[in-house]
Amino acid sequence: MKNNVEIKNIFLNENRDAVVILDQTQLPNRTAYLEINDLKDSYEAILQLKVRGAPAIGIFAAYALAVEARRLAATITDTTLLLSKLQEAAAYLNSARPTAVNLSWALQRMCAYAETLRTQQPLAVADALIAEGEKIQAEDASMCYKIAQYGLSLLRKDSGILTHCNAGPLATSRYGTALGPILLGQEKSYNFHVFADETRPLLQGARLTAYELAQAGVDVTLICDNMASIVMKSGKIQACLVGCDRVSAAGDAANKIGTSGVAILAKYYGIPFYVLGPSSTIDFNCATGDDIKIELRPDSEITSKFYQKPMAPENVRCYNPAFDVTDHSLISAIITERGIVYPPYRENLAKLFSDRQADACKH
Amino acid sequence: MKNNVEIKNIFLNENRDAVVILDQTQLPNRTAYLEINDLKDSYEAILQLKVRGAPAIGIFAAYALAVEARRLAATITDTTLLLSKLQEAAAYLNSARPTAVNLSWALQRMCAYAETLRTQQPLAVADALIAEGEKIQAEDASMCYKIAQYGLSLLRKDSGILTHCNAGPLATSRYGTALGPILLGQEKSYNFHVFADETRPLLQGARLTAYELAQAGVDVTLICDNMASIVMKSGKIQACLVGCDRVSAAGDAANKIGTSGVAILAKYYGIPFYVLGPSSTIDFNCATGDDIKIELRPDSEITSKFYQKPMAPENVRCYNPAFDVTDHSLISAIITERGIVYPPYRENLAKLFSDRQADACKH
Repeated sequence: MKNNVEIKNIFLNENRDAVVILDQTQLPNRTAYLEINDLKDSYEAILQLKVRGAPAIGIFAAYALAVEARRLAATITDTTLLLSKLQEAAAYLNSARPTAVNLSWALQRMCAYAETLRTQQPLAVADALIAEGEKIQAEDASMCYKIAQYGLSLLRKDSGILTHCNAGPLATSRYGTALGPILLGQEKSYNFHVFADETRPLLQGARLTAYELAQAGVDVTLICDNMASIVMKSGKIQACLVGCDRVSAAGDAANKIGTSGVAILAKYYGIPFYVLGPSSTIDFNCATGDDIKIELRPDSEITSKFYQKPMAPENVRCYNPAFDVTDHSLISAIITERGIVYPPYRENLAKLFSDRQADACKH
Repeated sequence: MKNNVEIKNIFLNENRDAVVILDQTQLPNRTAYLEINDLKDSYEAILQLKVRGAPAIGIFAAYALAVEARRLAATITDTTLLLSKLQEAAAYLNSARPTAVNLSWALQRMCAYAETLRTQQPLAVADALIAEGEKIQAEDASMCYKIAQYGLSLLRKDSGILTHCNAGPLATSRYGTALGPILLGQEKSYNFHVFADETRPLLQGARLTAYELAQAGVDVTLICDNMASIVMKSGKIQACLVGCDRVSAAGDAANKIGTSGVAILAKYYGIPFYVLGPSSTIDFNCATGDDIKIELRPDSEITSKFYQKPMAPENVRCYNPAFDVTDHSLISAIITERGIVYPPYRENLAKLFSDRQADACKH
């Protein structure tokens, strides 16, 4: 059986002075790796979705900040100055995309860790930050495996599963979040039948999810987003699995644009709708989904990107939100590496994450 | 104020021996007309969606059959033979697309009319069929105007309106069906704000609806299909207007794939969902939506058509239904040229169309 959970999407080069990423914008037509050792290039890689998927963005940003620390440490001898420069660099990287919490979470963790190294030399700080980036990635891989196990426990063999966007190995480490139970199920011969929404405008479902699942030998059928209703109606879907970019304390989940529509259809057809993500995605600083900032992206992604010629009239106005928020009332369960959380989410999330502290939402 | 309700999408050439159509597959990049006088080309024009929209397909097929009659009458002197050849031609054209009832409706009407001309010479039969085609088109224009008036009576000024696919002048005659109230409202300064679903895979919303509405000066915003949920949630939509390809006696409406999803979202957000079409679209031979045959189209429309390069892995399996059925329970009203029909549809449609007879569904 083919297996792609070991796909290398983000790693350090041999000298450990650059981050190497699998350029997701080139898939499925080209498998191209990019070596990035410049802060502006790191920012652009996130903005242009060369690296994407909430957990992957966090891992990449952590490495990018560590690589920047190494670059700065070559000329800076004062650790206080280094830490101040790193704070600036982190703020810059964090501004690339607003919705996924993992980006700010990883950068905050790196900066907080750097603060604890204030008494050390710049080069030692940089080395420690590289190690911390590797730790974040290893933790993510371990979390993904747990999420996959918890998710799989909710699914029956031979089930039809619908997923939206891409929350597989490319978006995370190893198993992925939403695709984790599917890939783990594939290893255990669960014989799932997966329907992948193509996910307009950037077609992550067509380009990445269909690619990852086909690579792993999973039975996958590609559909346009607007076909989810007819597929659900036909009885082919027993569960929906999606990832998440930020979950509020109330359980409202921001994820790729269109996710809330899938959830409403699932509710209408009586199909369970599961949200899967590492616990770092839960933002207790956001009381509800209304506190989550939704990124707006260029009109050209809708009208012309990918197309041979413009597919809409010149100068037509577009509305291009990258994410939407799925109300907690539409979610059957939220699955993290700590376990499966059922409604009422405000109480049950707080219970499961009683060690985490909430302060005012920063958005 | 700009106005495009007089757009010429289907007409006879000067010699009245060919049908001329505005090639809808070239829009919005080129305004190209095709002159068609061959039955195979007519079939291909329907199959390839060069002419599309349920009423437009009916009008085109009527003209195509009349043009074929004229071609045959040049060499056939026996009217019985002519009528038999026309029956074959009608069956062939009817096989181009299965879902829209208007195609079979128009062809049946033309054939039935031809039967009444059995005592006339072939050339006279052909002339009469040309005239019947023109009558069908004129009737459609008149029906569209009435539908527009009835539809507009349901809308308030300054409303936000969401539409899916294209049911405007290009798909019909003059005002269109779903776009009729919008275009008529534009003439009466209703100041609508329209959101057009791009409508994957063939992008009729982006290519045709956005084009028609922009041409008419209507305030239009293009969105991807999966953005309908966030737009509705934001309170920007006060009504959904869609066309239809076939409506069952129970009020279940087949229309472009994705329509049922829009209806489910509208119901969830408490937004009225209106289906607009000429009464020829109501098929009393279909008891419910389950009797409506859904056309499946090529995978390549999802994976590569329009794209610079393939946007999905090679050989990925696709599911590409061209239509879906919206359950009558999701429809706020069905608007035809005879008036506005509210639930319960089975009773109220039967009342309004008591002159029409039902027999077993042919599909």
